[in-house]
Amino acid sequence: MGDIPESHPRRDSLLSRQKMVEAASKGMLADSALIAHGRGEAFDYLLGEKTCSAARLAISETAARLQAAEKCVISVNGNTVALAGTQLIACAAVLNCPIEVNIYYRTPERMEILLSTLEKQQQQAIALYPKIKEKISRVNLLGGNPDSRIPNLEGPRANCHSDGILSADTILVPLEDGDRCEALIAMGKTVCVIDLNPLSRTAQMASVTIVDELSRCVQILFELLEKGTEQIDINWDNKKNLDQAIQEILQNFN
Amino acid sequence: MGDIPESHPRRDSLLSRQKMVEAASKGMLADSALIAHGRGEAFDYLLGEKTCSAARLAISETAARLQAAEKCVISVNGNTVALAGTQLIACAAVLNCPIEVNIYYRTPERMEILLSTLEKQQQQAIALYPKIKEKISRVNLLGGNPDSRIPNLEGPRANCHSDGILSADTILVPLEDGDRCEALIAMGKTVCVIDLNPLSRTAQMASVTIVDELSRCVQILFELLEKGTEQIDINWDNKKNLDQAIQEILQNFN
Repeated sequence: MGDIPESHPRRDSLLSRQKMVEAASKGMLADSALIAHGRGEAFDYLLGEKTCSAARLAISETAARLQAAEKCVISVNGNTVALAGTQLIACAAVLNCPIEVNIYYRTPERMEILLSTLEKQQQQAIALYPKIKEKISRVNLLGGNPDSRIPNLEGPRANCHSDGILSADTILVPLEDGDRCEALIAMGKTVCVIDLNPLSRTAQMASVTIVDELSRCVQILFELLEKGTEQIDINWDNKKNLDQAIQEILQNFN
Repeated sequence: MGDIPESHPRRDSLLSRQKMVEAASKGMLADSALIAHGRGEAFDYLLGEKTCSAARLAISETAARLQAAEKCVISVNGNTVALAGTQLIACAAVLNCPIEVNIYYRTPERMEILLSTLEKQQQQAIALYPKIKEKISRVNLLGGNPDSRIPNLEGPRANCHSDGILSADTILVPLEDGDRCEALIAMGKTVCVIDLNPLSRTAQMASVTIVDELSRCVQILFELLEKGTEQIDINWDNKKNLDQAIQEILQNFN
């Protein structure tokens, strides 16, 4: 798609689009992943392509819950690796937790390219965040050899690691599908999701929903995790926060 | 993506998605066309995946303007051919006008596959609409040998036919980009567009904007063209119609 000028008002969105197109050409994505990305673009457009105040609260709550967890994990799919793999590895490093690849349309080829991309991103993260390089190099990249299944979920997307998704009490899942979010909630886990559509089943069902663009909010999440001072809000009302995000979208519409 | 059950509440949307994924695998689409489709999906989701009353008015106005034109043309790109090529050829038959392929990222390979797909769709249209088969077989498929350019527009997307887009006074352009819509308006043409995003530059700039999913509204347009009884509204206020579409979206949000 060529170079995007530094001054372009929608530069970040176009850069993300470019990352997605490249990831598709490398075989990292399922057929309909670009369509899913486009849906996200539309909602981000309605959000004015900026982190709304409801999202800021949800990012802070997510940081607090991940830090307070006995055992947490970050679950990633193709779109997530393409858009924010490096930053999520840095988050995992601060949290001392694994990253687990879990994809809807699982093929050996896609799993291999995703895991090898994450390995490269781990090296990039070391270069980007030298202060925590030891922690980054210790981040476990799971997904290649699942030994368990998420109960009440059909198909290969249920495959998971017993030392990853299965045993975690708290899970960060960017760009999740509704069925899997439901199954994880049914397991009693705290499920923090990142979903640009505040009306989606995933957004409505999660414990904490960040209505924001992935790479934008993960950067904020990382900064909060590094500071490590966020406190859980025992009265967190996810429905109320979603309503606030919807109101912010509606304001931009008018 | 497998079979979609007849009873699935979002069947039409999933079928369109499948058509787009297939078109991409055949090389009919530019890299970012699936992302554009996803943006449309999100807006259609907000419209409740049905034709809103503002769109019905705009379809009717479009039918009237096309029929009243001295010379009209239907401009198509890859997404349009994939989603509604057959139905648009049937519309062109009733209007006795050409179809012209005009794409943003023009390559000889994509032009060839799009024109050959349209030829197949012309045969499908004959089978589907036997009453107008002679008219359908006379529809000219342009785009392969452009001999003119749209003024004030850079790059290969400006290439057009003198007996198609260049000389038409009225043009139907589903899924148009903002720059080209602006250039066509600057040429003094009546530009009828189909765009699911009522806030887009194309939607805001066109003479008549149909805020609806392509294959859904083209079916309605074809039926109106066949009846041939629509009258131009000399007081047509496109901004007002767009505001009405936005209001219908906002109602679905709450």
